[in-house]
Amino acid sequence: MTNLQENEKPIAVFDSGLGGLTVFREILRQLPDENLIYFGDTARVPYGSKSRETIIHYTEQILNFLRTKEVKAIVVACNTVSAYALEELKDRVEVPIIGVVKPGAYAAVKQTKTRRIGVMGTEGTVRSGLYPTYIHEIDPSVLVFQKPCPLIVPLVEEGLWDDPLTTEAVRRYTRVFREEHIDTVIMGCTHYPLVRDTIRKVLGDDVTLVNPAYETTAALRRVLEEKGLLRTMDAPVTGPPYRFYVSDDPEKFKEFASRVLRFEIPEPRKIDIEAY
Amino acid sequence: MTNLQENEKPIAVFDSGLGGLTVFREILRQLPDENLIYFGDTARVPYGSKSRETIIHYTEQILNFLRTKEVKAIVVACNTVSAYALEELKDRVEVPIIGVVKPGAYAAVKQTKTRRIGVMGTEGTVRSGLYPTYIHEIDPSVLVFQKPCPLIVPLVEEGLWDDPLTTEAVRRYTRVFREEHIDTVIMGCTHYPLVRDTIRKVLGDDVTLVNPAYETTAALRRVLEEKGLLRTMDAPVTGPPYRFYVSDDPEKFKEFASRVLRFEIPEPRKIDIEAY
Repeated sequence: MTNLQENEKPIAVFDSGLGGLTVFREILRQLPDENLIYFGDTARVPYGSKSRETIIHYTEQILNFLRTKEVKAIVVACNTVSAYALEELKDRVEVPIIGVVKPGAYAAVKQTKTRRIGVMGTEGTVRSGLYPTYIHEIDPSVLVFQKPCPLIVPLVEEGLWDDPLTTEAVRRYTRVFREEHIDTVIMGCTHYPLVRDTIRKVLGDDVTLVNPAYETTAALRRVLEEKGLLRTMDAPVTGPPYRFYVSDDPEKFKEFASRVLRFEIPEPRKIDIEAY
Repeated sequence: MTNLQENEKPIAVFDSGLGGLTVFREILRQLPDENLIYFGDTARVPYGSKSRETIIHYTEQILNFLRTKEVKAIVVACNTVSAYALEELKDRVEVPIIGVVKPGAYAAVKQTKTRRIGVMGTEGTVRSGLYPTYIHEIDPSVLVFQKPCPLIVPLVEEGLWDDPLTTEAVRRYTRVFREEHIDTVIMGCTHYPLVRDTIRKVLGDDVTLVNPAYETTAALRRVLEEKGLLRTMDAPVTGPPYRFYVSDDPEKFKEFASRVLRFEIPEPRKIDIEAY
């Protein structure tokens, strides 16, 4: 184990599977000098339809795993985990930990003019009610319309990013948003930005689409700045800048990740997450 | 622990989640005097897109759990497990263990007249190649066309059993079957019989649909008969006839199971499957 300066340590990003790569991509874009570790729990994906208790248990194991990696901050790149487990577990983590729900809520309130916000999410994220809670902490007068969209994740994972089936599913799920004249929609699951064009097409140009990844990364930068933890461009190179870990087949993940990130990622390492 | 006669012990049926209930339902129908235990691995569902290694690991844990239940036979009510893990693990089990793939292959060969069979299945089941292997063991001249149908499971789990989205997905997946003039299609995932009407509508009445659950139950009966293990109607009642175990939220499972089985099932028990 090398003896890294605090600011040279990597940032960890984790998700139930592949969706968190859209957050990883945004961190790459905004903070290109950082070293990053990604974990995707591909052996137990999806999380969105599972219970709060199970999600907390899985998240504990992931945090135990990340503890072995000497990271300087953790980004919970999964809305379901952010909604169900973050409050419960954040005090047990020694480094800053940032979820996607709070920054997403903040961004939406900043954007809306009509004070009518729609939230697309997994069953778990919607059931947790955390988006409405955070939105109402900022502005209690905002009306929030939530809609669970369980089919979008499997459609995205099948690669049907631009496909009539996906369009039809999005059309159904967002009907209530159109009826309720909302002007801002939170893409409250990290898979959804991959079908942004389809959502845009269905909702039209007058609706603002919020990708929480953007504000999450901005929040991450603020925290790192405050604590003097930003990595500088001239920091010594101590290893590969990006490392990927998964709990199931690395090959399948590699293919999908390389498509999302638009570069060939290094070989992911498979770990036994149940052992943590 | 009661001291049960061998033939009074229950039969265990397990699956990655909910799909195996269609097999459970068939066993109820053909063997109404038996006591049954069902386990659904709802915390880690689905299995169909995961790797062989992971499926074998999960199946080992399930078999360890079932070992604590004193069962007289085990039915693997999951095509992916039958395809990936059954050969590997069957010798470690002390009681008869029956999968759905072999009986399904047998039924299809018996039905086909044109010797052209289609197989719908998960990615894992298709990748394993086990349906073609078994079919060719019986009749090497049969042509087998396999098609992975990954979206059907989430569509079924969303309750869209009779829905244009499901019809469109089935239409795409079965296009190759229509082009290749197959006369028999194996519903090679235990979820598929729940959308049998949709598959029937798309494929037309001239195609025979094989539900492996039927032949699997017939095979189960033969094994129990041979070993003198059939429970008789006048066997003493030693407890509830059906018990359900899951690895995630029991309530959600109960609702779905009661819909599939058409009676209100007793409260499922949640167990920690990783501990086995």
